[in-house]
Amino acid sequence: MTIRDEVLAANEDYAASFGPKADLALPPAATSPSSRAWMHGSIRRNTPAERGDAHVIRNAGGRASDDAIRSLVISYKLLGTAQWFVIHHTNCGMEFFTDDVIRGLLANSLETAALGPDGFYDVGSGPGSAEANYIDWLTISDNAQSVVEDVARIRAHPLVPVASRSTATSTT
Amino acid sequence: MTIRDEVLAANEDYAASFGPKADLALPPAATSPSSRAWMHGSIRRNTPAERGDAHVIRNAGGRASDDAIRSLVISYKLLGTAQWFVIHHTNCGMEFFTDDVIRGLLANSLETAALGPDGFYDVGSGPGSAEANYIDWLTISDNAQSVVEDVARIRAHPLVPVASRSTATSTT
Repeated sequence: MTIRDEVLAANEDYAASFGPKADLALPPAATSPSSRAWMHGSIRRNTPAERGDAHVIRNAGGRASDDAIRSLVISYKLLGTAQWFVIHHTNCGMEFFTDDVIRGLLANSLETAALGPDGFYDVGSGPGSAEANYIDWLTISDNAQSVVEDVARIRAHPLVPVASRSTATSTT
Repeated sequence: MTIRDEVLAANEDYAASFGPKADLALPPAATSPSSRAWMHGSIRRNTPAERGDAHVIRNAGGRASDDAIRSLVISYKLLGTAQWFVIHHTNCGMEFFTDDVIRGLLANSLETAALGPDGFYDVGSGPGSAEANYIDWLTISDNAQSVVEDVARIRAHPLVPVASRSTATSTT
């Protein structure tokens, strides 16, 4: 059984443990976000001495950001990580807004927005900040495609060894 | 009991559960890194409906990187996170090298380095890459000071609401 198979099997067990809740759609809501929305970006070590040990990098969307790649390179160069996985999940909150949306919201107010049938809208007072215009929020328009792109970015990175570029791709 | 007190109490319980191992120095080693090295950067939600829910951001060193701040702002602006914590730990692997060290190692080889009494050294073959020169590795020279600086960076960020700027500082 490859490590990829182990991870997928463990994920099936974990998903099954949710019972009926596993079938719920989980759009983001201001009072009840999915904690799954922040479970991504796993880096797996695979040395004989420490098989099963994993370095887990987490960020919003599980994206292969510059910071995730920084963490990943430290993990393999100094600590021997041999395999890594990009793990996004279905109904991620990052699919429910765009750069324009969050930039507009933050330009209005630095208080938490509300979620209505037409999406997020501001209920707080200003001032907001235009600083959000200078951040790439790494939102997701197509989840499967975003995994493919993140894996491709890692594989093509000049600090990632060629031997690691056959890493499996999976959306869970 | 404040959330900060809850977190510190939970950490004491967790540390106590390690027994004698809790007292071990944990320098990084190529075959046995501390998994604690990747446990940092917690963002805590604090809404009545979901008290206890937390968004955990993890990266190498638990640094308040641009990517961590991206994740943090999404968490509070869209999902209502009201408090956040910066959590580093003692004997973090990020204290055991510098930008110059990892840049030199990666310039030599993209294979995992070894750790000897004088620090990391390359045992793999080349070619390496100079791309590491363009990355700020966010290493740590003084752990307590690095927490203070990370908290200060978050507090001063123009997208962080003033109401959140009294966040407690702690090293665990």
